[in-house]
Amino acid sequence: MSVTAARGFTASGVSAGIKDSGAPDLALVVNRGPSYAAAAVFTSNRVQAAPVRWSRRVIGDGALAAVVLNSGGANACTGPAGEDDARAMAERTARALRVEAEQVAVCSTGLIGVPLPVDRVTAGIDAAAAELSEDGGEAAAIAIKTTDSVHKTAVASGSGPASGPRSGSGPGPGWTVGGMAKGAGMLAPGLATMLVVLTTDADVSAPTLDSALRQAVRTTFDRVDSDGCMSTNDTVLLLASGASGVRPDPAEFAEAVHGVCLDLALRLVADAEGASKEIEVRVVGAASEQDAVTVGRSIARNNLLKCALHGEDPNWGRVLSAIGTTSAVFDPDRLDVSINGVRVCRDGAAGEPRDKVDLSGRAVTVTVDLRSGDASATIWTNDLTAAYVHENSAYSS
Amino acid sequence: MSVTAARGFTASGVSAGIKDSGAPDLALVVNRGPSYAAAAVFTSNRVQAAPVRWSRRVIGDGALAAVVLNSGGANACTGPAGEDDARAMAERTARALRVEAEQVAVCSTGLIGVPLPVDRVTAGIDAAAAELSEDGGEAAAIAIKTTDSVHKTAVASGSGPASGPRSGSGPGPGWTVGGMAKGAGMLAPGLATMLVVLTTDADVSAPTLDSALRQAVRTTFDRVDSDGCMSTNDTVLLLASGASGVRPDPAEFAEAVHGVCLDLALRLVADAEGASKEIEVRVVGAASEQDAVTVGRSIARNNLLKCALHGEDPNWGRVLSAIGTTSAVFDPDRLDVSINGVRVCRDGAAGEPRDKVDLSGRAVTVTVDLRSGDASATIWTNDLTAAYVHENSAYSS
Repeated sequence: MSVTAARGFTASGVSAGIKDSGAPDLALVVNRGPSYAAAAVFTSNRVQAAPVRWSRRVIGDGALAAVVLNSGGANACTGPAGEDDARAMAERTARALRVEAEQVAVCSTGLIGVPLPVDRVTAGIDAAAAELSEDGGEAAAIAIKTTDSVHKTAVASGSGPASGPRSGSGPGPGWTVGGMAKGAGMLAPGLATMLVVLTTDADVSAPTLDSALRQAVRTTFDRVDSDGCMSTNDTVLLLASGASGVRPDPAEFAEAVHGVCLDLALRLVADAEGASKEIEVRVVGAASEQDAVTVGRSIARNNLLKCALHGEDPNWGRVLSAIGTTSAVFDPDRLDVSINGVRVCRDGAAGEPRDKVDLSGRAVTVTVDLRSGDASATIWTNDLTAAYVHENSAYSS
Repeated sequence: MSVTAARGFTASGVSAGIKDSGAPDLALVVNRGPSYAAAAVFTSNRVQAAPVRWSRRVIGDGALAAVVLNSGGANACTGPAGEDDARAMAERTARALRVEAEQVAVCSTGLIGVPLPVDRVTAGIDAAAAELSEDGGEAAAIAIKTTDSVHKTAVASGSGPASGPRSGSGPGPGWTVGGMAKGAGMLAPGLATMLVVLTTDADVSAPTLDSALRQAVRTTFDRVDSDGCMSTNDTVLLLASGASGVRPDPAEFAEAVHGVCLDLALRLVADAEGASKEIEVRVVGAASEQDAVTVGRSIARNNLLKCALHGEDPNWGRVLSAIGTTSAVFDPDRLDVSINGVRVCRDGAAGEPRDKVDLSGRAVTVTVDLRSGDASATIWTNDLTAAYVHENSAYSS
């Protein structure tokens, strides 16, 4: 399904020889129209890869005909030659598809600071163009994997302009939003080391796409904080073909985009490098949403807590230590913390016995009540494991 | 040596039975005068342990007669009963020493959220008071260890009011500054899980002590960032007995305090939980010292880089990713990064070959030139290892 669940799109994934392993490493996603509206969100890291710089420029007019993506090399911190390589990828794709280079977004992922083997990449683009099909979404999702153990896709659809979106495995009779993502670590605020392409056959203008995408990213990908690190290449693209002929209600469309983004975001967390737990940090009773996000991130980034949860130790003292480093509104003597439903800390001191907490499963929920207001937010993260250390120390990535 | 290197101080360390292991867990440091000036710096964590609340109150008048310290329990997040326990420790110490409770600072370290066995603690105070001696500095330093693999002490001395401080192993004919520290993880800005007691026999007023201590802490303990976590109990105390009869030049005295703090801070880094590398992050060419500190911390906290350095991989792309998350003044295309002296990144792109970098030793220096000004700062951290994960997941700490 993936990016070809929505009508009007073709895709492909091939092995271009960028990766030494011979695994698939080059993907195309092509919008066949009749409409070409598009929106994008990029990393907020100030060190930005050449493909991000290129895509940021070409999305300016709110239209894209295609996206070319490669794994096996980030083309980041590669100087002026890297800029040339990103442009060459767009130009080769444009030539193969008979469109303009300025209608082609470019995404790269892999090691920073190493030049792409651009001859292999451009030859791969020609091969991928020859493979384009309405069933190519899966192959494209596979070709963008780096340390991902699985490829990630999601779909939601709505039946028409008046009804709500529904989740499902195929396109509805109305309109569909489909997507693919890659990412398995470096998941942090302002996106992560992740590439996401979303497509829809709904007939939606670029401003409506942009609004729906920003809303969705703000509460999904931007709240996944696997290891606090932020990448140079993060990109989320949303392309609309209009091929369904349906112009959905903007709120319903936004809800569908949010659903696909949340689905993909949780798949990223579930596949984070070396993780053995998925941790949901829910902050409630906050004076503001910003306070809730700040406290949630502080907890999600606390290495000591992440180790403790890995060891299945409901060490709520580390939660309080993390909260205490923030400037959020709270009274230290009125903090409540529940771990997997057991209120282990009440009024800033010991509550229910720790040994009532069952941490044997993969899913962990840490709920903090700041008792200072009505705002809330959820941050998703992982535990910190020896496998994470191994995966990030044994080779360059 | 330690806290008894300076004249006018006695100390002791005993096993009070707070730790199940029977290891030493209670220490006293006593100022015998003739002067009792004191200064302190506490954690900036808003969740503060009961002993920190107590000590913060009693240091208000700039005088202390003694410090009582325990390991085996942090007395943090223990509610009103914890406040009572901290007060009981001060009162019992005061009674044993025939001073006022308000002249006694209290420090605790260990697991958060667990009440102290206060009867054992107070009995231990009596035992420790009976053991006080001018040779007790070593025993005191040993009794405050938690996960520390070694106890940490340092000494500096100056020969008089007109000469500069000199490092040495014993008290000089003039004045001396001695200290002990405990800490082996959770080392973060605004102090760490660390307790530090410094003593001097110089004749120094409380305001001068305060100024010297704040200056020293700001560029030593506050710039150690082992795992980005900040504790509820951090305390640095400086007590002056005046027993040398020498009133040193304030600048020379401040330099000696700085020297002892830096020595102890580097010992904390060298003993960080599970670490295999000591990493010095030097940021130069910054527009301001604050920019340099911000960039240094961002690099020091990047788990991906810390894993890479553990794997002896000079992955400068992760350095640039970390710099890019800050709002410091820099141009991404003019960043230079050297690792152990090899400029692996020049102008934001690949420089010298990575394989020229020798990362086989414990000492690693990462130097970043922001090329935006003349300010600089150094942050000290460690690599991230499977041993760190093990140490922080296998049991509560």
